[in-house]
Order: sequence, then structure tokens, then C-alpha cells
Amino acid sequence: MAFEFSMVGRRLALGSGIGELMDDLGEALASSGEGLCMLGGGQPAMIPEVDALWRRRIKELLASKDGLQRMLSIYEPPVGGSRFRKAVADGLCQEFGWDLTEDCIAVTPGGQCAFFFLFNLLAGEMPEGDPRKILFPLMPEYIGYSDQGMERNLFLSVPPQIEEIGDREFKYHIDFEAVEATAARHEIGAICVSRPTNPSGNVLTDSEIARLRDLARSIRVPLIIDNAYGQPLPGIVFEKATPIWDEGIILTLSLSKIGLPGTRTGIVIASPQVVSALSSMTAIIGLANNNVGQTIAAPLLESGELLDLARTVVQPYYRRKCEEARSAFQRELPAHVPWRLHSAEGALFLWLWLPSLPVNSKELYERLKKRGVLVIPGEYFFFGLESPDWSHRHECIRISYAMDHETVATGARIIGEEISKVFAMP
Amino acid sequence: MAFEFSMVGRRLALGSGIGELMDDLGEALASSGEGLCMLGGGQPAMIPEVDALWRRRIKELLASKDGLQRMLSIYEPPVGGSRFRKAVADGLCQEFGWDLTEDCIAVTPGGQCAFFFLFNLLAGEMPEGDPRKILFPLMPEYIGYSDQGMERNLFLSVPPQIEEIGDREFKYHIDFEAVEATAARHEIGAICVSRPTNPSGNVLTDSEIARLRDLARSIRVPLIIDNAYGQPLPGIVFEKATPIWDEGIILTLSLSKIGLPGTRTGIVIASPQVVSALSSMTAIIGLANNNVGQTIAAPLLESGELLDLARTVVQPYYRRKCEEARSAFQRELPAHVPWRLHSAEGALFLWLWLPSLPVNSKELYERLKKRGVLVIPGEYFFFGLESPDWSHRHECIRISYAMDHETVATGARIIGEEISKVFAMP
Repeated sequence: MAFEFSMVGRRLALGSGIGELMDDLGEALASSGEGLCMLGGGQPAMIPEVDALWRRRIKELLASKDGLQRMLSIYEPPVGGSRFRKAVADGLCQEFGWDLTEDCIAVTPGGQCAFFFLFNLLAGEMPEGDPRKILFPLMPEYIGYSDQGMERNLFLSVPPQIEEIGDREFKYHIDFEAVEATAARHEIGAICVSRPTNPSGNVLTDSEIARLRDLARSIRVPLIIDNAYGQPLPGIVFEKATPIWDEGIILTLSLSKIGLPGTRTGIVIASPQVVSALSSMTAIIGLANNNVGQTIAAPLLESGELLDLARTVVQPYYRRKCEEARSAFQRELPAHVPWRLHSAEGALFLWLWLPSLPVNSKELYERLKKRGVLVIPGEYFFFGLESPDWSHRHECIRISYAMDHETVATGARIIGEEISKVFAMP
Repeated sequence: MAFEFSMVGRRLALGSGIGELMDDLGEALASSGEGLCMLGGGQPAMIPEVDALWRRRIKELLASKDGLQRMLSIYEPPVGGSRFRKAVADGLCQEFGWDLTEDCIAVTPGGQCAFFFLFNLLAGEMPEGDPRKILFPLMPEYIGYSDQGMERNLFLSVPPQIEEIGDREFKYHIDFEAVEATAARHEIGAICVSRPTNPSGNVLTDSEIARLRDLARSIRVPLIIDNAYGQPLPGIVFEKATPIWDEGIILTLSLSKIGLPGTRTGIVIASPQVVSALSSMTAIIGLANNNVGQTIAAPLLESGELLDLARTVVQPYYRRKCEEARSAFQRELPAHVPWRLHSAEGALFLWLWLPSLPVNSKELYERLKKRGVLVIPGEYFFFGLESPDWSHRHECIRISYAMDHETVATGARIIGEEISKVFAMP
């Protein structure tokens, strides 16, 4: 017996880019060891120093009187545990000189869930006036946002300006005239960017962020900054970029990319008004957060150890891996094809642009999958565009460089071969 | 700067019964040791044998090659980990002789979240025809459902028949004529019950469930059974009640009440169509589930140990505590007041009915809170009623008996005193 689904149900339940990604990722990991090059997901690397830290904390909890019990067997308030929230607030104040308390910190079941809450809180049908949209000032943006609207057409986005750098590199810049014109033409509920950007690894400059903040303030909406790969943790940023927060900004962090994705721990830094709203949404939707990531991380934030680790181990680790991966691709990608890699400024991905790619990136993805290499086709990262006929969106793929170097190098070789074949097609 | 919230945002973000409950629970626990009688939440008891089992599993994971790493540091597919899903499916087949595989099992971030997904998947605005509602055939029902509709007026419920048993007991029964008439008058998306019922501890009989199943089948919608307190785990059921599942039924379980609420692990047993929908919703809303509860429980389900523990330790533990608590209340509640306790058939709560209570139950709640006793006012458990002016809804409170006996006994004494005072009011 098949049941009928509601309008909202159909939007959220019948396939999605992020669903396909997670299914591929899950199936591939389940069948791992069969020589698959898993360059598709956002799985962070296994870094021995990081792993050792989690092991130490679990041993500490086992040795303590009731630490394990409090972690596993108690409901914490939906806004998050107070020790963890205070540790986050204090850590940020100390690191960046910000002025905030735990009243500005909410925990969510993973960073992505924070965006489901925020987008639907701030945009869609309003009590008065026209429906509002979430404005993405620089597309491509994170695939995981693209299906999160409970209402149709919640998103509005603007293509970037593309700077070509040398023969083999490019970088996105916000097209501010277009963004400001778009904001003037539509009802906006929030402006949202990821920094570093997933998928491109672009890091918005301080002046770009300042101008976005001014724009958001002028239309009385928040600027949401998804800091899942940013500072102070995991700190996977290779360019100078100043973290920023005030009550007009909603900043999100996550424990996933520092190495705890299995705990689903998202962190939102926002005004108490927004924190209180998120707490209510967590209570209604899921009763409470899981405590595991918070319990592991709280003392490591209090001591500063986790931020030290991000600075001294995690950031250098990914910088080295990123450089090795770029070298492999520069070696393996065919010389006669006009490929370009986005500037490596942060996050876990190479973003490969293949101008005039003869097939679309989904077909390239399928061809690579048949050869045992999993990437993400770029199409999924372009959503909310007013003019969807923009060839660039079919010409990119996202490649994770977080796996071991042999996997990345093998992937680079096979990707190079397939690209050669595709460009040789009649 | 205060931001404007959307219609959906206002519904989910601006206070709710469940939010107040969780805030009270969290604040009270945070300030524990100050003599507070916390009889308000659904916090399960700390049972030494259960705690020892979790400790053993964590030690096993530490000792294994990569068990801890896989638990904390890997994204699993959004539908849940395959080992855990198979362990659940096999356990149910073995325990009850059901015919199902892991394709019928989805994991959600806690049991409550499963209901947010299911209600909004199956009811609300439809692609064709009138909007559908979730039908609750026996109100009072779980407070946590009451605010979960993304759309207004998602719920429709029917008051029960009340059987008075002796001088001091009562029991709810489904009023099937009213339920069937209501189902005929409205567009229904699903029928939903909790079994045992939170708050009343009522356990629907096998024949009541069979009749609900027939009704659901006749209108081509699923019967959802919330089994958070039921068999086979945690198994907090004191009456004979046969667990039931087929593809027309959506059955939910949770690891919370067996002792892992801090891990937020919900389990849905449903047709592959529904499982696939839930997987997609998890992917979009939160990317993936946390792995902790699944990792701890999977081998304990495979070996049968967890179900044994539920049968031999958890069920008898709560049965004894329930009897002790009822004795305490029978002793402490004033003889001259016409109070009745709902029959104790399962779950963690006493459901106290005070016919002709001179104040409403919220005021009684506030008075008790001032005396350091936290309960839940009954009002919150009545929602979706077509005729809201039903005095019974203001005359009940929910009292957890899961805390240590001294706390429960002190609570009983103070509740008795306050009830005496309230009934003595001019």
C-alpha cells in the first residue's frame, strides 16, 4: 500500500541533491575496500592527533564519577548544555575579543540543521507583506541548502564575477551591483554565505563581508555566515580572513570538520532573540540535542586545547593535503583541455571548472562513477538563480581532497583520463 | 536589532508546551541538589545494570581497532547505519515473528523528530484535494506532538470514554463511534496513537488496535503507533498487549527510555516507501544521524542482550517503582477530595485526575513549582479537539515516577498538601 504525501512532504521526501550525495557516500563507504576513490563527500580526514584527543576524552569520561552517564543518559535543555555553551562563548571572546555570553549560543543537531531552522524562520510567508527569500550573493553555494525550503522558491541567488588567474586558476568575486539590485527588487529575509565557500573553497574577503553586512543592516535582516570550515575551528582557511560577529550577524560553527561528524553538533552564534527561536524549534522538532559532541568538546574548549589543535595540526594538515592534491591534478589533467581550479583559500574541496565541457557535469559524474571515482557534479551547487541558462553551472565538479593521497592521486589520474575522452568526443 | 519571523517560524519558534517543559526540565536539572522534586520530565531512571552495559560497550569500542573512530568521526547514510538497521530488523523478526528487513527501518534524530517528519509528510496541504489532518483517536496524547505542524490546524482529536474503576481509579477507552464519525467528516492523512500512552499510561488493547488498523486501512492511510515506552524495548508495559506491525502500520521505537536519551536515537519501522521518505527528510534537514546510540546498541541487539535486559531488569524495575509511587500517592492525597489515578498499564507517569478541581491545572502547576515540585499541567496534552470546552482537560496533571523513591514520596506529600489547599479555597 503506497501512501499519499503532502506538498511539504513531497518537497522534503522525494529525492534531493543532498540525498543522492549522502546515499552515494553511504553506499560507497559501506562497500569500501573495493578500490573506490571516494572524492565525493564532505567526510573529514582521519588525523591521528585528533583521533587521540577524542580517545583521551572518552577515557576521562569513563574514569569520572558520572561523566559518561551525563553524556548518554540525560536530556539537556533544547538550546544546548550550559557548560558547552559557556565554553564556546568564552572561547570566542578570548580568541577574537568579541563581547558575548552563552545567551548568544544555541546548539543544533548538526550545522546543516541550523540552516533548515534559520531559512524557514526568516523567509517564506510572512504575517504581513510579501513572502521573503533567502539571498545568496555568490552562487555556487552549499548543495545542502538547496532543498531546505518548506515553501517553494525560498531562495534567490546571484552569479559571481569570475576572475581568471593565469592559465589554470580562477576565483569568484561577489557582483555587488547585481546583489544590491536583486535585494532592491525582492523581499529578503536574510543574506547567507558560507565562508570558506563549500564547494569552491573561495573565502570572502573582509571587505566583501563588510559590504554584505552593511547591505543586510540597511534592509534590517541578518547576514548568516556558515563557518563550518572556518575559524577558529576547524580553521581550514589558507588566506587571511577576519572572523566577524555582531548582533546583526548569525554565525554558525560545527564540530563535524574538526573530526566529530558522527555526533551531529552544530553551533549558532546569534542575538538572544534568534537563539531563543532556535531553542524552541529544537524542542518542537526533536525535543533536545544529543550531548556527545558537546561533552567531548567542552573541557577542550575551556582549556584552549581544541583551538590550539586546529591551529597547529588541523590547518597545516589540510594545507599540505590541498597542495599535494593540486599538484596531482595539475600533473594529471590534460594539457590540451582548458581546465581551471578555483583558488585554494579554504575548505576540503577542489572546484574544477572545465570551460566548454562537451557534456554536462552530471554525465561526467556518471562516467567517473563507472570508473570507481566519486565526485559531486557541480549542477547541484547552483540554485535560486533568476536566469538558469548559465553554461558555467554545467562545467564544474567538486572533488574532496581529504582522503589519503594515494586515493586522491588515483582519482586525479582517472579524472584526467575521462576528461580527455570527453573532450575528444566528436 | 530584532528580526521578523515567518509564519512557519512563528509557529515553531515562539514558545510551545514542549519548549516550556524542556526549559523547566533543563533549568531544574541544572540547579539540582537544591531539594527540587523533578517529577515533570520524561527523564528515564538511572538503573545500575543499564549504566554498566553502556560503560562496557564504550570500553569495547575503545579496545577495538576503529570502533570509536567509526562512531564519532564518520558520516553514515541518512537512513541510519546498516548494521544497526539490520540488528533492529532481525531482532523484531525473532522476537515477534514479523517479516521485515532493514529496508523497513529508518533511524531519526530521536523519536520525537520521527513524528515531525511523519505528520508533515502525511498531512497538510495535498497536491490534490483538501488539506489532510492527523487524527488522534484518544486525547490526551503526547505534549510533544502538539506544536509539530508546519501548517495550522494539522491535528484533529477525539475525547475518550472514561471508565471509573472503584473509588480512586479510571481508564480511558477509545470512543469508536465518535472516531469513525470524525474520520468520515474530515480528510485524514494518518491515525496516530502512543502505546503506552504518554501521559496517561493507558495501553490500547489488542482489539482497539485492530479496529484502528481496519479504520486506517479503509481510508487508505497509515496507523502510526508511538512505541517509545513499549515492547520490546524499553518494554515498560504492565498489561498484556501484543505488538503489531504490517506495511499499513508505522511503528516507532526509541533508545531514550531504555537509557540513552542523550544520544537522540529514534527508530521507525515502516514500508520501504515511508522509510525512503524519512531518509530523504533526514538528509535535507540534518544531513545524517548521529551514530552514537546506534553504535552502542547494535551488538547488544544482535546478541539479544538488550531485549533480555528490558525484560528482566527494566520492566520489573519500573513496575516496582510504579507500585511504590501509587502507594505513596494513595497515602498522601487527601481523602476528602475526589481524585483518581489512571490505571497503571505502562510508561513512566502517573496521570492524576482531580474532578471539579477549583483552579485549572496550570495554576496547580505554578503552586507546586513554588513549593519545589515540578509536574506537567494536563492542559498541554489536550490538542486538536473540536469542542475545546471540556472540563476534564483542566483537571489532570502528569507526574513522573522515574526519580528515586524519596523524591517521589516528598512530591506526593507536597502535591497532597497543595490539593487540599486548593479544594479548601472559598
